[in-house]
Amino acid sequence: MFECSLKEVGVLKSIIDVLTSIIDDAANFMAKPDGFGIIAMDPSHVSMIDFFLPKETFDTYKCDSKVKIGVNIGNLNKLLKRVGSSDELTLKLSEKGNKLQLKFKGKATRTFSLNLIDLEEEEYPSPKMQFNAKVILDDPNLLSSAIKDAELFSDHVKLDVESNKFTVFAKGDNGEVEVEIPSERDALTLEVKERSSSLYPLSYLTSIIKIGSVTDNLTLEYSTEMPMQMLFKLKKIGEANGYIKYFLAPRVEEEEEFEEEITDEDI
Amino acid sequence: MFECSLKEVGVLKSIIDVLTSIIDDAANFMAKPDGFGIIAMDPSHVSMIDFFLPKETFDTYKCDSKVKIGVNIGNLNKLLKRVGSSDELTLKLSEKGNKLQLKFKGKATRTFSLNLIDLEEEEYPSPKMQFNAKVILDDPNLLSSAIKDAELFSDHVKLDVESNKFTVFAKGDNGEVEVEIPSERDALTLEVKERSSSLYPLSYLTSIIKIGSVTDNLTLEYSTEMPMQMLFKLKKIGEANGYIKYFLAPRVEEEEEFEEEITDEDI
Amino acid sequence: MFECSLKEVGVLKSIIDVLTSIIDDAANFMAKPDGFGIIAMDPSHVSMIDFFLPKETFDTYKCDSKVKIGVNIGNLNKLLKRVGSSDELTLKLSEKGNKLQLKFKGKATRTFSLNLIDLEEEEYPSPKMQFNAKVILDDPNLLSSAIKDAELFSDHVKLDVESNKFTVFAKGDNGEVEVEIPSERDALTLEVKERSSSLYPLSYLTSIIKIGSVTDNLTLEYSTEMPMQMLFKLKKIGEANGYIKYFLAPRVEEEEEFEEEITDEDI
Repeated sequence: MFECSLKEVGVLKSIIDVLTSIIDDAANFMAKPDGFGIIAMDPSHVSMIDFFLPKETFDTYKCDSKVKIGVNIGNLNKLLKRVGSSDELTLKLSEKGNKLQLKFKGKATRTFSLNLIDLEEEEYPSPKMQFNAKVILDDPNLLSSAIKDAELFSDHVKLDVESNKFTVFAKGDNGEVEVEIPSERDALTLEVKERSSSLYPLSYLTSIIKIGSVTDNLTLEYSTEMPMQMLFKLKKIGEANGYIKYFLAPRVEEEEEFEEEITDEDI
Repeated sequence: MFECSLKEVGVLKSIIDVLTSIIDDAANFMAKPDGFGIIAMDPSHVSMIDFFLPKETFDTYKCDSKVKIGVNIGNLNKLLKRVGSSDELTLKLSEKGNKLQLKFKGKATRTFSLNLIDLEEEEYPSPKMQFNAKVILDDPNLLSSAIKDAELFSDHVKLDVESNKFTVFAKGDNGEVEVEIPSERDALTLEVKERSSSLYPLSYLTSIIKIGSVTDNLTLEYSTEMPMQMLFKLKKIGEANGYIKYFLAPRVEEEEEFEEEITDEDI
Repeated sequence: MFECSLKEVGVLKSIIDVLTSIIDDAANFMAKPDGFGIIAMDPSHVSMIDFFLPKETFDTYKCDSKVKIGVNIGNLNKLLKRVGSSDELTLKLSEKGNKLQLKFKGKATRTFSLNLIDLEEEEYPSPKMQFNAKVILDDPNLLSSAIKDAELFSDHVKLDVESNKFTVFAKGDNGEVEVEIPSERDALTLEVKERSSSLYPLSYLTSIIKIGSVTDNLTLEYSTEMPMQMLFKLKKIGEANGYIKYFLAPRVEEEEEFEEEITDEDI
């Protein structure tokens, strides 16, 4: 038994929109007594997303026990695009457990029923890792802008964290770009155990960073040539904040590719 | 001899834009002593459109006798997209009767001449029919929104009118949607001789409903498994209102398709 | 040695955007002690563009001697689209002369380095010509609107200048359009030695006229069946105005094509 209602559906709409560009067509949401979310991998198993809305983000929330809700994310996204950000949503699992009902009340009463999909998907636990570098961005747009700059030159990007600066770097046949975000700015906090430098594939970062627009801040952690963890604290809905965690494997640096770094003498 | 002028060309622009998505490339407009319009069928003869602007909607209007004006609607539409909604238009049939001249005066004087097409098209009378259900919508957007919801699931839609509610319903492999518009709202008036329920193809409705934005209201009439008639009362231009009537054949329901209806037990 | 800075990068962005639609992928910019610019032909050698920003348009400008800077214009354009119109730009040739560095300072410091291309391109002088007709348009949009009208009917356009009016005319299988801009308007000045009438290819005009939005005025000069010269005076940047000159070869009129002109009797 699962039924909940949500007055502000804007954050949920943005999250589902981002999910469609990361995970496979279909995935299992999990409704649990303490909240609603998903843990899923992208089709190439290079990244994992862990999204969770605690029950306090909902206006009403009823869930007796953990239940798996297999949904075609693309269809759910198209459906949510048809509703206004302020439309009140009631979400309900049908009694037979084979349909997810979404009801919106406005000038008309609109009741959508999505047929559920039986997905024999493995349940992934959310990984626990230790990292050497932590970057806290109050404004995730600083990173999303740097990612777009990097896309001009390459399909992967190098992140470099020193004690007092965070650098995003990309290099290709046409040239290179270096975006330097100094830590003296209030918008950036750095915690560095060890200077860390790693390459990550750009297409995944491009997809996930879109969620920045509905988040309060982003904590990015990684170590040299190790996976990265991004923790987006979602904007408050109702009484609480939900979150999205994103884990991304590094692109292992090939021998000579970055050996000749950009230097001042070079310019 | 046909010559007329029109200060507000916005409504005409919207109508021609809708015509391009419904009828064939070319069609015969009719200039008559009492007004200007068109009656034409779509290429598959599933629907018919009857559009008319009485002479009172024009600032000046001269037409001695009925004259057929065969035009490539696509070209006329591209041309009208090049003029502002408030540009004053003079429309004139050339003396030889082989060109339609459109003149716009602004910073520059722009004179377009479209070569006419000799279309040996049958002249259709506008059908007269009796219906069991009548729905009057002050805001046609209520219907156009329901049509977009229906498109998420199917390529046809079921309209159902009972004494006190109007329901739009669509069902497909992925799920279903039901949009209920209650008649207690001022925006909706229902006149029901008999509960009526019919399926109609969505693509045609999607095309015609766009005209809603330049109309004062929409009267939709139909009977179970019978054609539908939509009457859009156009926004007033000059001294009068024009209209668009649209006739659409039903999609005959196949045996089992809708036999299992959405029920409360199901959810 | 070449290094300069520019506070308002908006005009430069618009120019590079127009260049990408006219000249080949790559072209040689010229940095000279008195300013920065380019003279290049389109791939079919039907037109030539001569763009120049005098050193006074820059906030700082250092250039010892003339230096060729071969750039992939498409890449430069994509890069400039990533910066705001008010971002301050520092442009610098690397010491080895093989990279063009563009640095933008804002919330982050973004340093782009474009690899230069060694183009063995001929150096064209900007042509000096005499013309019989001169049209000065304070608002180049009057011409760009007429060009869009002409595109509805043909891929070339006829310009006609008489003592007191400037006419843009196009004719095709579907019809024709005549846009008449009278010279009594303040926005248009005509200087006519001889009535001049010429055909020009529309696609080139469509590309170049986009620059109109960042110009103060346009001086168009031509003679019957001779090349046209357009001189766009760019909006003032810093202490001075730059300019774009554009030269376009006529489309030589075929025998009968325009012999039957649009006449009043015809309508």
